Amino acid sequence: MTLDMLDLDLGIYEELDLVEEQIRERIDCGISTINEVARHVIDAGGKRIRPGLFLLSFKALRGEDISKVAPLAAAFELIHTGTILHDDINDGSILRHGKLTAHQKFGTTNSLVTGDYLFAKAFEIGSEYKKEIRDVILDASIGLAVGEIIQSQNIMNIDLTEKKYLDIIEKKTAGPISASAKAGGIMAGGTGSQIKILADFGLNMGIAFQIMDDILDVIGINTKTGKSVGKDISEGKLTILSIHALKHASPLQRERLKEVLLKTDNTNQGVSEAIDIIKNTQSVDFARNMGKKYADIAIGSIDNLPDSKWKSKLKYLAEFTIGRNY
Amino acid sequence: MTLDMLDLDLGIYEELDLVEEQIRERIDCGISTINEVARHVIDAGGKRIRPGLFLLSFKALRGEDISKVAPLAAAFELIHTGTILHDDINDGSILRHGKLTAHQKFGTTNSLVTGDYLFAKAFEIGSEYKKEIRDVILDASIGLAVGEIIQSQNIMNIDLTEKKYLDIIEKKTAGPISASAKAGGIMAGGTGSQIKILADFGLNMGIAFQIMDDILDVIGINTKTGKSVGKDISEGKLTILSIHALKHASPLQRERLKEVLLKTDNTNQGVSEAIDIIKNTQSVDFARNMGKKYADIAIGSIDNLPDSKWKSKLKYLAEFTIGRNY
Repeated sequence: MTLDMLDLDLGIYEELDLVEEQIRERIDCGISTINEVARHVIDAGGKRIRPGLFLLSFKALRGEDISKVAPLAAAFELIHTGTILHDDINDGSILRHGKLTAHQKFGTTNSLVTGDYLFAKAFEIGSEYKKEIRDVILDASIGLAVGEIIQSQNIMNIDLTEKKYLDIIEKKTAGPISASAKAGGIMAGGTGSQIKILADFGLNMGIAFQIMDDILDVIGINTKTGKSVGKDISEGKLTILSIHALKHASPLQRERLKEVLLKTDNTNQGVSEAIDIIKNTQSVDFARNMGKKYADIAIGSIDNLPDSKWKSKLKYLAEFTIGRNY
Repeated sequence: MTLDMLDLDLGIYEELDLVEEQIRERIDCGISTINEVARHVIDAGGKRIRPGLFLLSFKALRGEDISKVAPLAAAFELIHTGTILHDDINDGSILRHGKLTAHQKFGTTNSLVTGDYLFAKAFEIGSEYKKEIRDVILDASIGLAVGEIIQSQNIMNIDLTEKKYLDIIEKKTAGPISASAKAGGIMAGGTGSQIKILADFGLNMGIAFQIMDDILDVIGINTKTGKSVGKDISEGKLTILSIHALKHASPLQRERLKEVLLKTDNTNQGVSEAIDIIKNTQSVDFARNMGKKYADIAIGSIDNLPDSKWKSKLKYLAEFTIGRNY
């Protein structure tokens, strides 16, 4: 995936290595199945957006002792990993990044329970920190569950509004990303307003990030292990792109797009037609502009943080998220 | 279910009412699906063994302010409810207490995510208490996941040993029950050795409780909403009863029992034959004696607690668990 943090020069290679160590240490419980299932997701690469953002936020507010916060940075990745395991079961997804999903490879039970285990381990890490930090982790986790319920209730809801879409991605993606930034700020001993700035930065960057992810579902990525195109469409998961397309397509196109979104057993042909309709209605550009808008809000919002190399890296991360650099 | 705490005169009716209030308050998040799914399990009655044991342990060590601990007692029931939701998905169970399981009624996603939500809410409650309490909740939750993995790995393992069976039920049932007792003791300000006594009491009572549950799967219960008989057998889940039966059956019976345990699409006839083999090998008596042994250990272990009405109630609960009173 082109968004891999390792492709980014964020200046935190060593710190991310420490986090990786923590991730691996915490999933190692002597039960080989749990290790295998968790590593299937973790080793798939992933973007480490959450730990990366945590570390930059921590450093932007002059946090120094990485060894004290590395477990916490890892906790956000463990929650993310558990969420992927459960989401793939919920969505019935077969592939992720071109590899079999964990529940396809290891079965639903192993995947579901490893998710439970990872959540518990993340809370265990949280429990080593003060209540303010624990609350951040808990709020994000509860929001994730609520967001997933709302999202599943809106599968094949062709009347999904932009507002509701934003509510879902705020809870499911941007909330946990915001939580990472906020926690980094808290651990650095930032002031209330600095912490709020970082939380807002994470929230807006997270929205931009999810919008970009939704765009990639339509336009695809040119890598060997790229995300399969049209997954959202074939699962009937409406995004800002299909919402926009439904609004701006011709009546005939709209009916065809609806038909594909409402169908459970789509052919490649059907999904491909839906993608064409989305592209023809300029919905990709619309979404990209929207993503840029949120990334800009994020970038603008941290102007009031003290200037530093890390503040620039945060801005760079937000710009990278929406794909301005590629 | 005959083990309903309300059938028991434990002298904690009002306290359990406070816990019920907390349970209902904590699951109420404005998302009606989460409420409905959680209440489907919670309103099915259940035994409230965990909050009941928590409260008795708290009172046995002269804990007084119930309002301060009612949320914590509720947390153990929330974890139990989340576990039921996830276990029923893992086992593919259709019925529980004669009612449709939640995932059958509301779908896998709603059931899975409500489980995640309930775990997060339980950790949220835990986070309001000191680290010692949080550790108790976390250890139980992590043990639950590990136990579920080991259990699922041993589905249809006709070589399952008594030792491994005990390890599974210790992690999956007795551990969380022990945690409730331990947390009650901690909250009452008990000494280290008193808390250890309560934890041991809960552990042994929990093992006895699960053995009784396994017996009921074979002998059934005479109530309208009783547990469906032979569920463990038809799912290939070996218990102390089938382990004992496999060891003591005639070669012919053993082959037949193996056949049923290893079959995924058993007929009622097959399950019924397996039950007969289990009964004919005196495996019910064997299991009952084993359960009694653990209940006796539990009862004996609290002799060193200060005498009180609540200590007697704890003993009464352990006796009731193994069914001496009915």
